[in-house]
Amino acid sequence: MITILCGGTGAGKFLHGLQRAFGGRKASRAITAIVNTGDDLVWWGLHVSPDLDSITYALAGMLNHERGWGVEGDTFECLARIRALGAPGWFALGDRDLATHLYRTGCLREGMTLSEVTAELAAKLRIPTRILPMSNDRVETRVLTEIGELSFQEYFVRERYAVRVGSVRFVGATEARPAPGVLPAIAEAEAVVLAPSNPITSIGPILAVPGIRQALATTRAPVLAISPIVGNAAVSGPAGDLMRAHGLPVSAVGVAKAYCDFLDVLVMDTQDAALAPQVEATDVRAHVCNTMMRDDATKEALAREVLRVAKHTKFRPRERATRS
Amino acid sequence: MITILCGGTGAGKFLHGLQRAFGGRKASRAITAIVNTGDDLVWWGLHVSPDLDSITYALAGMLNHERGWGVEGDTFECLARIRALGAPGWFALGDRDLATHLYRTGCLREGMTLSEVTAELAAKLRIPTRILPMSNDRVETRVLTEIGELSFQEYFVRERYAVRVGSVRFVGATEARPAPGVLPAIAEAEAVVLAPSNPITSIGPILAVPGIRQALATTRAPVLAISPIVGNAAVSGPAGDLMRAHGLPVSAVGVAKAYCDFLDVLVMDTQDAALAPQVEATDVRAHVCNTMMRDDATKEALAREVLRVAKHTKFRPRERATRS
Repeated sequence: MITILCGGTGAGKFLHGLQRAFGGRKASRAITAIVNTGDDLVWWGLHVSPDLDSITYALAGMLNHERGWGVEGDTFECLARIRALGAPGWFALGDRDLATHLYRTGCLREGMTLSEVTAELAAKLRIPTRILPMSNDRVETRVLTEIGELSFQEYFVRERYAVRVGSVRFVGATEARPAPGVLPAIAEAEAVVLAPSNPITSIGPILAVPGIRQALATTRAPVLAISPIVGNAAVSGPAGDLMRAHGLPVSAVGVAKAYCDFLDVLVMDTQDAALAPQVEATDVRAHVCNTMMRDDATKEALAREVLRVAKHTKFRPRERATRS
Repeated sequence: MITILCGGTGAGKFLHGLQRAFGGRKASRAITAIVNTGDDLVWWGLHVSPDLDSITYALAGMLNHERGWGVEGDTFECLARIRALGAPGWFALGDRDLATHLYRTGCLREGMTLSEVTAELAAKLRIPTRILPMSNDRVETRVLTEIGELSFQEYFVRERYAVRVGSVRFVGATEARPAPGVLPAIAEAEAVVLAPSNPITSIGPILAVPGIRQALATTRAPVLAISPIVGNAAVSGPAGDLMRAHGLPVSAVGVAKAYCDFLDVLVMDTQDAALAPQVEATDVRAHVCNTMMRDDATKEALAREVLRVAKHTKFRPRERATRS
């Protein structure tokens, strides 16, 4: 039983590789994905969960891998008409993708929890992997920027993360509870892996839900992370700017520092081999290998490597500091 | 200034012809369309107004004329996915059409009235014709059938009107008020025309809104109707079954009887010329001409004919019975 903490793009790729490493979709029932919902938004009146959707589509084999979001082969007829009506159209929802949001919004309106809808969508798409939102409570990632405080999607999509960022906060986090199954999935896993997702705005909101960071610090399972930073930049997205704004070095070392209170192993790219000693100075073991997921074969190879490292990571009963 | 009472398909065709007769879209600002909203439904959580949409699309030149509803050239990608998720899919919304419903639903949620949203949509589509819902209050057409009481769309679309019908009622009608502009548009028109729409479930709900039937009976404008029944059957849809269930002959005579308390002239098809004396026995003048709208030319010809007849209909100060 493997538990993965997930944001969007990088996590989708890694889960896709993991599914292959497990021998296909059926065998992937041994995986639990705990997914960031801090980016969720109400758009055109619909409840959209971008990271849950990317993960779900990736596991269903429906994801548009080139974009990293949305449904492969989707069309945008509705979007074009909405724009013609003068409504905001900067957040693009495809026509097929819309079905997910209409379905989710309807279920939530009928009183289902986000967990329940997510499980239902996974079941309809015949995904045996357990996909859990981090929380059924509303936690909203807000990014303070030079043009004011923005929602994550306003910052990421509308502004294309081209504005200077200050701090990030997670509104509602202190009152939020982990969704059912989240804490046991961490406590009882054979290994916990933080996907190569943005540490501040993808993994950050998950860690901000009270109890989750503590669970990572106290689980007997080895906790590994794959660095989303290779060299001095994020493989994709604004992780670099956000880490810098939070006083973290934009490097594998910064990733280790973000997680060092609970992390056993940081899986980092061969390009960054020279940084391994600095990583290990944070009391995190460094494992160096190729982490660039360029195609199905490299995704699967990374997943196999991570599973292998997890298997050989012995439990270190240690006084782990907890920050939550 | 011409005011048209409208259902869906037949009304869309007639308005399209009238727009041409007026010399194009710009000149059509002299037209006011009062539209049935008894068929409105909440579908996939969205407020759908099938007749308002057909009229709006017809006037914008966007209507799929073959089907009589929806947007020409629309795709159904969202629908296919929704069906794949196991949600009800018997009411088909196209991808472009969805934009209208998302937009309307958002505006209503923000507190706009249906009148205001309808005007806004018309403005965005550069339609100068005034399109008015019959009421901003909820009036729901319910059809009692052999399988129970159904909403109009359940009867019409889901059951394809293949079930036996009893009576029809308009829930909420007695408390409903005409939308702003409806009564003046009837009182102050140069002519009022009932489009060739189903007398029971398209025009019927409009007449059920308190004050509207009275306004038709007391306006100084000539009131004309175009018979939607040619021979012994409706040109399209279930008007025949519904008229029979309401004790009306399924013929131009039945249409005259449905409206005889306020109608001046029934425009009826040449095929039915022999019925003219029976129509006139209801104290309604019969005008016989070709009413089959097969293409743009015949639509325009009918519109011109109706305008000509209206012009030559003198005001008959008479004791008109009122049924509302």
